[in-house]
Amino acid sequence: VRRLEVKNVNIGVIGASKATKEELALAVEVGRLIARSGATLVCGGLGGVMEAAARGAAEEGGIAVGILPGNSLEDANRYLRVAIATGMGEARNVIIVKSCASLVAIGGGYGTLSEIATAMRLGVPVIGLLTWRVAGRDPDLVVRAVTAEEAVDKAVEIARVRPASRDA
Amino acid sequence: VRRLEVKNVNIGVIGASKATKEELALAVEVGRLIARSGATLVCGGLGGVMEAAARGAAEEGGIAVGILPGNSLEDANRYLRVAIATGMGEARNVIIVKSCASLVAIGGGYGTLSEIATAMRLGVPVIGLLTWRVAGRDPDLVVRAVTAEEAVDKAVEIARVRPASRDA
Amino acid sequence: VRRLEVKNVNIGVIGASKATKEELALAVEVGRLIARSGATLVCGGLGGVMEAAARGAAEEGGIAVGILPGNSLEDANRYLRVAIATGMGEARNVIIVKSCASLVAIGGGYGTLSEIATAMRLGVPVIGLLTWRVAGRDPDLVVRAVTAEEAVDKAVEIARVRPASRDA
Amino acid sequence: VRRLEVKNVNIGVIGASKATKEELALAVEVGRLIARSGATLVCGGLGGVMEAAARGAAEEGGIAVGILPGNSLEDANRYLRVAIATGMGEARNVIIVKSCASLVAIGGGYGTLSEIATAMRLGVPVIGLLTWRVAGRDPDLVVRAVTAEEAVDKAVEIARVRPASRDA
Repeated sequence: VRRLEVKNVNIGVIGASKATKEELALAVEVGRLIARSGATLVCGGLGGVMEAAARGAAEEGGIAVGILPGNSLEDANRYLRVAIATGMGEARNVIIVKSCASLVAIGGGYGTLSEIATAMRLGVPVIGLLTWRVAGRDPDLVVRAVTAEEAVDKAVEIARVRPASRDA
Repeated sequence: VRRLEVKNVNIGVIGASKATKEELALAVEVGRLIARSGATLVCGGLGGVMEAAARGAAEEGGIAVGILPGNSLEDANRYLRVAIATGMGEARNVIIVKSCASLVAIGGGYGTLSEIATAMRLGVPVIGLLTWRVAGRDPDLVVRAVTAEEAVDKAVEIARVRPASRDA
Repeated sequence: VRRLEVKNVNIGVIGASKATKEELALAVEVGRLIARSGATLVCGGLGGVMEAAARGAAEEGGIAVGILPGNSLEDANRYLRVAIATGMGEARNVIIVKSCASLVAIGGGYGTLSEIATAMRLGVPVIGLLTWRVAGRDPDLVVRAVTAEEAVDKAVEIARVRPASRDA
Repeated sequence: VRRLEVKNVNIGVIGASKATKEELALAVEVGRLIARSGATLVCGGLGGVMEAAARGAAEEGGIAVGILPGNSLEDANRYLRVAIATGMGEARNVIIVKSCASLVAIGGGYGTLSEIATAMRLGVPVIGLLTWRVAGRDPDLVVRAVTAEEAVDKAVEIARVRPASRDA
């Protein structure tokens, strides 16, 4: 994974609190690689894929941020460096999407699908690992990846050029 | 369509502001039938499917409520009896889902997909007309319908029994 | 109270669920007068001042809309014609403010103070009955009133000219 | 200022983007002291008091988090280590309040008043520096301080014992 020259770029990891072993292993590796790129990892702050990704980032000395659905920071997983309590339930998914230069989606939960759809709507690129395939009037814009490395490579390449990236 | 005995039940219509003629014709008819059932129609308040459904409801003397994404009530379509400005962008989709006993989804825009996904996540039944098909780890729970009458029949049957319905 | 010529104008009533008898009596009268003006009454949907105002509107055949903080429509008071479940807690106060041409504040709860402050910030005029007085760097812009009739008169006069009013 | 033994505690700084020189100087010092305590500084992410506090934290090697009202991270001030785009306007104030163990309010803008009121409503302690005084049915619970050191001392003491603090 190439290193970002710009600082303070957010890359999101979206996925469910109930996940398979394969999804969790992918999430840890994705978290590690995002941290190595120099990006800040943003996730939903709970367990499962969110916790695994935050753990990967923490193990590499990176910063993992959790945007929680509830009112209490006590719901936060232990690997977050920063936890934010929105008290807005599923509406917090929109905040995650808006805050990231790109997203890596892991697994096929309904919450993940709502985040993918919101990202498509708002033009935030999504890289998909073992995630939803959708068919409607509008096209499925998810970029598919097979390995964690491929996914993060793509997410970082996009983050390098998107205007949402801040050079701080 | 059977008439609801309970009062003040919300049934949602979700769909994009850019829609085909077929989708718009369906939306007008769905709006009419929801109004005839005695339910309040809740939608996103803008144009396209939202406006067509609100128009159908208004033509039958029903109440159409629009939950707008922006800060200004001036974005509201002209058929709404009540317009609410959330200023929360796409996060307003979650409010529409939470406020309804059941939802009719028309067409295949990304915003509609995010609402379907949020509804699946929160357990709000969705009846689909010409809308997304999705495949992931979790099942596609959208109940398919072919005609406006079939869709509203199903939406009203569900609204009749769901606890979200208030008997006012 | 003069009647609004424009249709579908929202006037808000903000106040706490715990209220004194005097506040509740004022709220019923304010609700009645708002309904008589032809405006739609928007409130927080719960008990106390919110319920009293909705009751007043309902008794005059008007429409009362409740923007609820929680996820369930079952929290709605019985006088609402339309209930919306935001699931956003106190953040729903901002939605009430943004949706109204003017607001009548009754009583001195903390939630009411946050709504007054948000209204000042966003430029939505507030008429105050027995409510907070504030002193800071910025001025206290609340227009004071003593009777329900004086308060609604002022709220309707403002609603008549503010651009948020929609002519539907 | 005593150092927090627990990790990952958020202390908020609330204040306007338009501020006096005195308020800005206080904000820089408050930011420095919060960083020295080991707490994470959470603010609204824009200019004025928010930027000054973030600058103070950054100068001490601390982490400043900005919860932005808009959709774009480009609005973020340059001293934030983490920026979050809520796209929810003034409703983002509620997120700041919910995420913090205690808050330091500097100056008298309307947005600050809405945050103070929301904090009172939700039971989050507020330490006030040159900020609003309010009088209503409910008491003014703001703890007054005169110097930055006094304010942060109190904020840290509270953060030490409040359950919102996470021991990560």
